[in-house]
Amino acid sequence: MKSSFHGFASLEKGKKLESFSFDPGPLGDEQVEIAVEYCGVCHSDLSMIDNEWGMSAYPLVPGHEVVGRIVEVGGNAKGLKVGQRVGVGWFSGSCMHCAQCLSGNHNLCPNGEGTIVNRHGGFANRVRAHWAWATLLPEQLDGASAGPLFCGGITVFNPIVQFGVRPTDRVGVIGIGGLGHMAVQFLSKWGCEVFAFTSSDSKREEAMKMGAHQIVNSRDEAQLKKIAGSLDFIISTVNVAMPWDAILSSLAPKGRLHLVGAVLEPIPVGAFSLIGGQKSISGSPVGGPATVAKMLDFASRHKIPPITEEFPMSQVNEALDHVRAGKARYRVVLKNDLG
Amino acid sequence: MKSSFHGFASLEKGKKLESFSFDPGPLGDEQVEIAVEYCGVCHSDLSMIDNEWGMSAYPLVPGHEVVGRIVEVGGNAKGLKVGQRVGVGWFSGSCMHCAQCLSGNHNLCPNGEGTIVNRHGGFANRVRAHWAWATLLPEQLDGASAGPLFCGGITVFNPIVQFGVRPTDRVGVIGIGGLGHMAVQFLSKWGCEVFAFTSSDSKREEAMKMGAHQIVNSRDEAQLKKIAGSLDFIISTVNVAMPWDAILSSLAPKGRLHLVGAVLEPIPVGAFSLIGGQKSISGSPVGGPATVAKMLDFASRHKIPPITEEFPMSQVNEALDHVRAGKARYRVVLKNDLG
Repeated sequence: MKSSFHGFASLEKGKKLESFSFDPGPLGDEQVEIAVEYCGVCHSDLSMIDNEWGMSAYPLVPGHEVVGRIVEVGGNAKGLKVGQRVGVGWFSGSCMHCAQCLSGNHNLCPNGEGTIVNRHGGFANRVRAHWAWATLLPEQLDGASAGPLFCGGITVFNPIVQFGVRPTDRVGVIGIGGLGHMAVQFLSKWGCEVFAFTSSDSKREEAMKMGAHQIVNSRDEAQLKKIAGSLDFIISTVNVAMPWDAILSSLAPKGRLHLVGAVLEPIPVGAFSLIGGQKSISGSPVGGPATVAKMLDFASRHKIPPITEEFPMSQVNEALDHVRAGKARYRVVLKNDLG
Repeated sequence: MKSSFHGFASLEKGKKLESFSFDPGPLGDEQVEIAVEYCGVCHSDLSMIDNEWGMSAYPLVPGHEVVGRIVEVGGNAKGLKVGQRVGVGWFSGSCMHCAQCLSGNHNLCPNGEGTIVNRHGGFANRVRAHWAWATLLPEQLDGASAGPLFCGGITVFNPIVQFGVRPTDRVGVIGIGGLGHMAVQFLSKWGCEVFAFTSSDSKREEAMKMGAHQIVNSRDEAQLKKIAGSLDFIISTVNVAMPWDAILSSLAPKGRLHLVGAVLEPIPVGAFSLIGGQKSISGSPVGGPATVAKMLDFASRHKIPPITEEFPMSQVNEALDHVRAGKARYRVVLKNDLG
């Protein structure tokens, strides 16, 4: 039986999405097919629609924060069954045999398959993924808000694990948006003392509710000076230039500034700002399947839901405009009403 | 008895050194006094003579790669006796009670005492140091060449320990000079595959003798492209701008570019060069006393001497000119002929 998927695609760079159907071809041996229930809207969907990174192919069905149920399983797909509830994020496949995949760093596979790169994503009734990249959702997690964990969530959770952030650490989160609001919650439940960096007055109180212990206005260098030498780990989720020198100065000896926000303007790093205090600057993309599973367990045990606003998938363009305008509080999720 | 030290001091910024005597005052309770036998010449001595970092006080007796014998021990100095052979590096004291000192990171103490910062260093017949910063030399180490281990050596050895470089790693050393020639030897004996980055033809063969397995011309982007994605750890010892983007590209996933060379021009770091491969950039200063002792043991067991040229201390200005001209192969050491 020839199946047909339907959803919403951008037919040209920067264009509004339009209703779109396509034949996905036969299911891969190692793939599962998922009936989409919810799909988060990530800023990267906009970047891909706008071809900001020069790697978009049109028609392009965005959507890479998928939650749904497995409806079909390939002959060699391991560990999954029809009917199970899973999620899929930025990656929907990797080679499985390179040094990175074999080390559990599937997210660093040089041949990783992006869910919306040269294939179609989750703003649709169905999506497919390699079995390793479809992760089981714990029972207790609400499917309606879990989608954003699979890209935004894992992007901020992964470095906490990778770089050994400890509950005794004093940490900073720059930007309280789709990613940052999850970082604050994770780090607070991780046991850390959390400093939320935001220039938005309206987010101060909300950040405290998420678990932040102190608020720092990241545009106010006097406030940054006050906390000089005190933070062990700062995660930056913003994609705009910051007073980087002052932010590096706020790090304690051996401190790390970690970038997950794709700021396009290069950061000018003075060697002396790193040498004296043995400081690091680093970056990372999402996380591997084992870390995704760890995150889901942690989020479930500690009741850390992404804070979301729901739109029906049929109103995808309104949802995208809402995100584009910076109005999302804090993540937009589409509910599949396409059937 | 009022003692008098004599040596060589710069009386004004950038001036040639002149014969200089001073009264060091009473020996501190926790200090030891050392009869200088040898003292290495570090590029930082020139930076301090020239007040490049704005923290020089004149008269300034440079010298912070000291080897000598203890001639006097303060009442509370621990673990050392008169007659023992020790070395002293960039630091000659730290507070001992801050979080960094209590964690073994004395080199990150915010009140660390620089051997030539507001006090006098090792281009003299005597020098003093806090007991924790005077490290015993293993019997087998030749005193005449050991001095450079205490600043140049520990500067490149410390990050190997701090950042967990493993014998299975493929590593790069940028700049084969005073620091780099020790880094190549350490990393080679550490079991790593070592890539020496140099633009000097005359150093290629010598770098291979030091233990490098491959030579890369760091100014030739085609050569850098060939090794893209392959190095786990790169230590940069140079103080000039490099093709940083190409160097970051030569790092493998999870790779680290570590800076110990005090390059003044900021390094423009694109977030994307770090994010995709989970890469880091970092820096560090010398090392703590326990790491210095580890390094001395390692250098002694593996017969890793700094490669030095000897000048009598009375010819200190000729020695400094030699270093200034970039002619040192690979480190200059002064032998005390002052008595």
